[in-house]
Amino acid sequence: MSRRTVFFVSDQTGVTAETMGHSLLTQFDGHFRTITVPFVANLERAEEFCARVNATAESEGQRPIIFSTLIKDDVREVVKRANALFLDFFDAFLAPLESELKVKSSHAAGRAHGMADIAAYTARINATNYALACDDGTNARDYDRADVILVGVSRSGKTPTCLYMALQYGVYAANYPLTEDDLEQSGLPAPVAGFRAKLYGLTISPERLQQIRTERRPESRYASAQQVAFELRAAERLFERMGIPFLDTTDCSIEEIGSRILHKTGIERRVHA
Amino acid sequence: MSRRTVFFVSDQTGVTAETMGHSLLTQFDGHFRTITVPFVANLERAEEFCARVNATAESEGQRPIIFSTLIKDDVREVVKRANALFLDFFDAFLAPLESELKVKSSHAAGRAHGMADIAAYTARINATNYALACDDGTNARDYDRADVILVGVSRSGKTPTCLYMALQYGVYAANYPLTEDDLEQSGLPAPVAGFRAKLYGLTISPERLQQIRTERRPESRYASAQQVAFELRAAERLFERMGIPFLDTTDCSIEEIGSRILHKTGIERRVHA
Repeated sequence: MSRRTVFFVSDQTGVTAETMGHSLLTQFDGHFRTITVPFVANLERAEEFCARVNATAESEGQRPIIFSTLIKDDVREVVKRANALFLDFFDAFLAPLESELKVKSSHAAGRAHGMADIAAYTARINATNYALACDDGTNARDYDRADVILVGVSRSGKTPTCLYMALQYGVYAANYPLTEDDLEQSGLPAPVAGFRAKLYGLTISPERLQQIRTERRPESRYASAQQVAFELRAAERLFERMGIPFLDTTDCSIEEIGSRILHKTGIERRVHA
Repeated sequence: MSRRTVFFVSDQTGVTAETMGHSLLTQFDGHFRTITVPFVANLERAEEFCARVNATAESEGQRPIIFSTLIKDDVREVVKRANALFLDFFDAFLAPLESELKVKSSHAAGRAHGMADIAAYTARINATNYALACDDGTNARDYDRADVILVGVSRSGKTPTCLYMALQYGVYAANYPLTEDDLEQSGLPAPVAGFRAKLYGLTISPERLQQIRTERRPESRYASAQQVAFELRAAERLFERMGIPFLDTTDCSIEEIGSRILHKTGIERRVHA
């Protein structure tokens, strides 16, 4: 299969078209060149986009694939005429939904990811600020406001997961790093000891952790096989001894880690899909 | 239209099913109760899920709607039999893609959002660490590594945007806050003066900024109408005088801000959809 050009086109940001297209493309082994074209919201932009697609088809000798989330009928009709396989998300699903709900949809662009919901926006910002304020063991006095407190050794994925959970779900996620000192003691570190029910552990394979730490501080004790193995073993023992649920992040994307924690803990999200 | 229950079901995190379902639901004015059910990856979980859907249909007197991203045929066949409107993303689009690409897809679960691409994971983590290290004017000595440096007054949306761009695109985004002192001078603040081509301004309506600041520090000078108006006017004048492109974030979601900046600047993303 030769390399195919794929366009993600949208009258808005293109995030939904990208997500949808990416999910489908990962099912195929081919090589794809992906191009996102956001804000195609009027006929002029639609015509421009078509010309670009047609030029690509001609120069590459095969028609591109278009994943589209174009809600306006007139814009979609223009893009549909381009020399490409055209897969539009609203085309496929709006009709069955309208018939099920027995109403016509609004066909209004920009509703998803818009400011339709200022409350959701505020929740995400507040949760992000919380994650920043309570990152890496800081501001332990604010742990009573946490929905979850991630614990794990340095570079086990705590910070990006907290930020993702804040931005995606509006969840208040703090994180506390297990240091060598913490791991040499038998109990929980003092700052998190009073919050056992909120704790969630992250662990990772020694090989992967060593790789990540080496990138950061090559040839250091911090990145040595021995140190990494000691810390991970001690952290996992601590989780088990204290009954703290934990997750191995080695083969997980940030999305998966966040989703699994939400699912396992039953934390209520403040921002709904 | 009465309140309808909507399930987002997936053999993975459910993020794609949520994105897809949410885009479609925002086209309807009804009220929906949304429930995400991730990790339905085997027949047993599929049967459990069906039972839950059927119980909901019975107790509510109307069938729910299911948005699904179930890649395994056998799992999907089970869920399809539930008493619901079943809209599956792979059902709708895999067949036309297979026929266009003249290959069968792998039908393998967990490819999207998986660790298929460790390089992408690393890029996102590194970009997130960069955004954290260079947040709010810190570590200006690292500005030469920035893809973009956001500038704006306090609470104009800089930090969440930088974190979103890091997580979503792997882009290195720093941010520098325009303080009152900065705004009283005629030129660019010293730390960013050498990086004019990387600067991107954020602004916001005075009403919205006052609301955000009041939530943070009620009755303060910081949140006063006069102060807010002064800062925003001075910041916008600075952007115009220095030829710095800028964006009004008042009616934008974080996704929109990130996407617009990427689009306008032409910055190359390190993580592709």
